[in-house]
Amino acid sequence: MKVYRVNMTNQTITEEAVKKDYLALGGRGLTSKIMLEEVNPACDALGAYNKLIIAPGLLSGTSAPSSGRLSVGTKSPLTGGIKESNAGGTVSQKLAKLGIKAIIIEGMPKSDDFYKLVVSKNGVTLEKCNELVGEGNYKVMETLLKTHGKKSSVMSIGPAGEFKLQAASIAVSDPEGRPTRHCGRGGTGAVLGAKKVKALVINDEGAPGVKIHNQEAFKKAARSFAKMLLDNPISGEGLPTYGTAVLVNILNEAGGLPTRNFTTGRFDGAGKISGETVAEKIKERGGKTKHGCHPGCVMQCSQIYNDKDGKYLTGGFEYETIWGFGANSEIDNIDGIAMLDRICDDVGVDTIEMGVTLGVAMEGNVIEFGDDSAAIDLLKEIYTGSPLGRIIGNGAGFTGKAFGVTKVPVVKNQGIPAYDPRTVKGQGVTYATSTMGADHTAGYAVTANILDTGGTVDPLKKDGQLELSRNLQIATAAVDSTGFCLFVAFAILDNENALPCVVDLINAQYNLELTTEDVTALGISILKDEIKFNELAGFTKKDDRLPQFFKDEKVAPHNLTFDFTGAELDSVLDLD
Amino acid sequence: MKVYRVNMTNQTITEEAVKKDYLALGGRGLTSKIMLEEVNPACDALGAYNKLIIAPGLLSGTSAPSSGRLSVGTKSPLTGGIKESNAGGTVSQKLAKLGIKAIIIEGMPKSDDFYKLVVSKNGVTLEKCNELVGEGNYKVMETLLKTHGKKSSVMSIGPAGEFKLQAASIAVSDPEGRPTRHCGRGGTGAVLGAKKVKALVINDEGAPGVKIHNQEAFKKAARSFAKMLLDNPISGEGLPTYGTAVLVNILNEAGGLPTRNFTTGRFDGAGKISGETVAEKIKERGGKTKHGCHPGCVMQCSQIYNDKDGKYLTGGFEYETIWGFGANSEIDNIDGIAMLDRICDDVGVDTIEMGVTLGVAMEGNVIEFGDDSAAIDLLKEIYTGSPLGRIIGNGAGFTGKAFGVTKVPVVKNQGIPAYDPRTVKGQGVTYATSTMGADHTAGYAVTANILDTGGTVDPLKKDGQLELSRNLQIATAAVDSTGFCLFVAFAILDNENALPCVVDLINAQYNLELTTEDVTALGISILKDEIKFNELAGFTKKDDRLPQFFKDEKVAPHNLTFDFTGAELDSVLDLD
Repeated sequence: MKVYRVNMTNQTITEEAVKKDYLALGGRGLTSKIMLEEVNPACDALGAYNKLIIAPGLLSGTSAPSSGRLSVGTKSPLTGGIKESNAGGTVSQKLAKLGIKAIIIEGMPKSDDFYKLVVSKNGVTLEKCNELVGEGNYKVMETLLKTHGKKSSVMSIGPAGEFKLQAASIAVSDPEGRPTRHCGRGGTGAVLGAKKVKALVINDEGAPGVKIHNQEAFKKAARSFAKMLLDNPISGEGLPTYGTAVLVNILNEAGGLPTRNFTTGRFDGAGKISGETVAEKIKERGGKTKHGCHPGCVMQCSQIYNDKDGKYLTGGFEYETIWGFGANSEIDNIDGIAMLDRICDDVGVDTIEMGVTLGVAMEGNVIEFGDDSAAIDLLKEIYTGSPLGRIIGNGAGFTGKAFGVTKVPVVKNQGIPAYDPRTVKGQGVTYATSTMGADHTAGYAVTANILDTGGTVDPLKKDGQLELSRNLQIATAAVDSTGFCLFVAFAILDNENALPCVVDLINAQYNLELTTEDVTALGISILKDEIKFNELAGFTKKDDRLPQFFKDEKVAPHNLTFDFTGAELDSVLDLD
Repeated sequence: MKVYRVNMTNQTITEEAVKKDYLALGGRGLTSKIMLEEVNPACDALGAYNKLIIAPGLLSGTSAPSSGRLSVGTKSPLTGGIKESNAGGTVSQKLAKLGIKAIIIEGMPKSDDFYKLVVSKNGVTLEKCNELVGEGNYKVMETLLKTHGKKSSVMSIGPAGEFKLQAASIAVSDPEGRPTRHCGRGGTGAVLGAKKVKALVINDEGAPGVKIHNQEAFKKAARSFAKMLLDNPISGEGLPTYGTAVLVNILNEAGGLPTRNFTTGRFDGAGKISGETVAEKIKERGGKTKHGCHPGCVMQCSQIYNDKDGKYLTGGFEYETIWGFGANSEIDNIDGIAMLDRICDDVGVDTIEMGVTLGVAMEGNVIEFGDDSAAIDLLKEIYTGSPLGRIIGNGAGFTGKAFGVTKVPVVKNQGIPAYDPRTVKGQGVTYATSTMGADHTAGYAVTANILDTGGTVDPLKKDGQLELSRNLQIATAAVDSTGFCLFVAFAILDNENALPCVVDLINAQYNLELTTEDVTALGISILKDEIKFNELAGFTKKDDRLPQFFKDEKVAPHNLTFDFTGAELDSVLDLD
């Protein structure tokens, strides 16, 4: 295993041995650790002192099911704090197979040239790629795969990243070589853009592959774990059948589907944008309802969505995306929503941040609620680098300030996703306290609040939510280090044999003797690193709060506010 | 004395007695105290929980020379912290004569109507004034003075304030009824706009006037103080002759005139924009080189600047304005600079913030350095509410984020004015540590650094700067509470009899027995209130720092960086 360090100030690349401390770390655990050790948290996120770290999960590149998640760590230009943005796609496994523990991109060139980083068994090289400047991710990936071979994988930024916009994502190619997977949240694409890296091409042909210490034990555990994932009703049935958009009807029913910029919790048009409707359209038009974002995924919650003429339109069409462009923007035309998703994938911005931003822009009368064609035009502005496009591409907080809107659903300046914090209160606790800013994945309390997975906690009441969010945040930090998709959590929460199985996998691969307690300890240790980074960046408890309107405005149909005190919220990540 | 409380949520006005604790407070001391006591520092600056407090200084409305300064206190939408924005003009004295200690504007209306607040001896009334919406300050003041009588004074916001832009100012009418005086810094105009107050009209006809306890002692002290101001070479000669723009040549000579977005410390075109040149043009064109921004000012540093046809163009044409639109933007056409000043006065934005913003926009290639006609077009965008206009009107930090510029000279998101912190190091200490964000007036170390007033401290060296800045920040907080113009400081610093004279004035008016030590104690107490407010708003020591580039980039001609450590800066306002 090795670490590549890419210095963009002088375009030099060095190969380093993996520090002892880093050997049993991967994914988020590794990126957050390196960030804390190497980067001054008070630095300018878009300046030369920030770094961007790419790390596969601990189990990536192996036959462990659904273990192909990739972590990108950096100081977020959107939140000003630590960021780990986690994506599927085909890159993580290839990096792992090449024996790469992490790629650290640092410094900043003086010239305006853009570069691509080419990663293969022969090492890493930097090449100018100014011909790709201004191109969207679809074109970039198509071009690079033509040049470097179809078996390669690509990470790239669109124009939004080149413009260093705070909602810019890094796209990760899916098995078809399309940019449907993203390190979406927190503006990682802007950091890559600031460092003048347009793309990375990863080719694992001839790679040594991942060394498994105890092959037999590993295979056995991998098989058991795959079965547990498939036996679980959510990961084995709900997700493969309808994708994550299965949640539209569920959240609408629960009254927790934020509608019209978080004005109410139910959307009249929910049926038109539900997972069931999406699945039906996909079947009619010859798409794919079941699709893995990376090889080896057994849950296959992704899909391929064609337009009405049966031509490919978009993929990785997630619940949170459909919520943001749908209910939150009062748009009930699913084809319009799919087009908005495609634009985001191509221009390279986070769909969640854009969904929240559209709601704010509509609140500010920039365009009207429900107008999907105006929304499409608005997002297309991002390509042009126009002042309007730059405002929108900088996210919801920025758009609110530009247009004098004060009802702006953000925490640490990052848009609040898809689950109303007043009605799914455990989720609200996570939004307020997560080190990442508002992030549903950071502690997905929807499990016990809505899906009755891992216990049942009444979503409308405060009882039990603080503990629920804390435990989930700890577990998630650990899961984000393994390379596993977060959706393995459904099996882990409901099957007491699942977590031991994960530990068996890690032990078998790395020749370790970890216990399930060590997983909790790892999660806590990661969160502590991140909290420390944020404190040194200047964050205080004041940043662990929801916007005022969630306290002042009751949300229908349950007519609730977000009613946790500051002291209650401060107790959640008091980990000492 | 009384306090008026204007609740904009339901448009009610109440008259309150002055709290005992507030009796010996005025100006900044009063506004910062009320803000800390009444406002949650973590509130949204543009939301219903923020307040805007208007308070004349302790000596305003009396015959004390140059005592007509007004304080506006609020939570700043630009910095997110406490703000006291201090302006000349004719309002402070009228409020004092009406016996008004403070006007507190709170709440926020639900409807889109805009209001004017009419203040007279009969009390305060609110009236709708939608006919003024969209108008610039020149038109607003002309219209209101026509309606309410030429003897009235006006405070108003332009379109920038209506749009709630973070650099929006509140204009204060000068003796000619023009909007040349502003509570410029920190976005006070946006707060007034959020509260839907377009203007205040103040008429002091029939006012009771200010009660002076000991008339004889007061008169004697006032006369002595006026003489001291006139005997001082700066306040008695430099300022009345050339205005504050006398500093252009002085700072250029010192190598501390930030040029081309703080790239170098000398400007080739300095001679074309100097105070001497401005005075010459004014004389040629029949303007006024010597002009008081309020009656009773003996220093008269303001002026009336006509265009080449002898027609009024602008007034209150300050050094910092000329620097920002001149050297910092590499514009050497003084008429273009005057036009930029006029646009700011009319659309209602801070000239300093706009000067810094132009530098950043030019750095980001939005327009070219040195192009005054492009700069004029750019600032005119603010009137239109276009996306570009909203970006620019939100100030330098916002503009940097929109256009991907990382060389952005701001502290606490407020633009750094007119004196390079690397070359006028005492000023740099003030910028970093002031409770207000980068603010030259908060602790004007230019005195000892450049003007050899109040001692001499080498501007190029660190020695003595921390103490200098601390003492000036304490003294300034006190002076900002008296209603005196800060320029009385030149006399106070150089004449040991001046401060006792100020104390005599206050004692004679209020029947107190203060000593000069009490003035220091007042300054410290005000700063402590402000520091506490900022801490509760979420500020940390990380906010008391200059941007990285001041450490990394040496500035010509002295080739210095800003080299204070964090611990050194943290010691400055360690007042316990």
